[in-house]
Amino acid sequence: MPEKGLLFILSGPSGVGKGTVRKALFESEGIGLKYSVSMTTRHQRKGEVEGVDYFFRTKEEFEALIAQGKMLEYAEYVGNYYGTPLDYVKKTLADGYDVFLEIEVQGAMKVKEKVPEGIFIFLTPPDLKELKSRIVGRGTDDLSVIEERMKVSQQEIEMMSHYDYAVVNDQIDSAVSKIRCIIESEHCRIANVLGSYEEMIKEW
Amino acid sequence: MPEKGLLFILSGPSGVGKGTVRKALFESEGIGLKYSVSMTTRHQRKGEVEGVDYFFRTKEEFEALIAQGKMLEYAEYVGNYYGTPLDYVKKTLADGYDVFLEIEVQGAMKVKEKVPEGIFIFLTPPDLKELKSRIVGRGTDDLSVIEERMKVSQQEIEMMSHYDYAVVNDQIDSAVSKIRCIIESEHCRIANVLGSYEEMIKEW
Repeated sequence: MPEKGLLFILSGPSGVGKGTVRKALFESEGIGLKYSVSMTTRHQRKGEVEGVDYFFRTKEEFEALIAQGKMLEYAEYVGNYYGTPLDYVKKTLADGYDVFLEIEVQGAMKVKEKVPEGIFIFLTPPDLKELKSRIVGRGTDDLSVIEERMKVSQQEIEMMSHYDYAVVNDQIDSAVSKIRCIIESEHCRIANVLGSYEEMIKEW
Repeated sequence: MPEKGLLFILSGPSGVGKGTVRKALFESEGIGLKYSVSMTTRHQRKGEVEGVDYFFRTKEEFEALIAQGKMLEYAEYVGNYYGTPLDYVKKTLADGYDVFLEIEVQGAMKVKEKVPEGIFIFLTPPDLKELKSRIVGRGTDDLSVIEERMKVSQQEIEMMSHYDYAVVNDQIDSAVSKIRCIIESEHCRIANVLGSYEEMIKEW
């Protein structure tokens, strides 16, 4: 029987570059992770592939999965659902593969409630001043919108303490290399290897 | 003021290859660790350098340091003391450098009592059968000596659960790369970075 895989969750404040880092991670050499594709009820855009970019479902289908407890986490955003189907994650972990989620902070906290043994990685901006100027400089929004976004960002950063690791997204390569190290070192954690050694000691 | 360094402790059963892995780690590129040189009362052998291989001290000097609480850990072995001087470790950590100890299992457990926040890495043989055959095949020892050594090894392996990580010494390069990842990822652990972010949030 294969050893159970580990669940890694990459999250962080909006605008920090989660998607870019996740893509670079999966393009890096010899990566053995399985990416958990999100499910959404939003319209499939040109070029988007079912099961690669998203699983596209109707609102009724999505709500049925919620009712059956088959979403690991989900959120509503601009009238559409977005979420992580539970079955894929469970099956892939049971098959011995690591699973990687890239989700928003609110979703990550919901995953933590259900899977506290997951490994939660918080992607941070190089410094908060830069994030602030990125939020302020985003466009022609009025001051109240900017202030609201900054409040949300601050709250998201305060969530950091609930995570296991913080990785600075100063350079993509460096962030990817750190995440790869976290994955490798988590496989060396005593809790994750002790079982196999206990078996060996019995046979001694 | 520099951030405080982290204390890494490499240990594991006798004969597993701790010294070889430690040497290869320190020869690997761009390593920022400081190795804590042990102190001993045994005779300085030809080629051994004071402060590099060991700090050589008289029994009286060593016992005075013990009495002053200035040894992080020590043990007596074949009539000589071996141990880790506390001052070097404290000063180097305070200066913001990581410190690396390579010590026996008993010593590591003493360090854990004093520095529970240390990061304890257990070097394991590829499998226990190989360790067993290595112990049995060591020489012309009689059965009772072999059995005693095996009992000690088994007890040492049972200590694994007190460690943070287990690294398999199947290939030296692979063990070194895992230890380097553990060092890098420990620097991303929330507990080790949260302080600096809390400062930034205040200034927001």
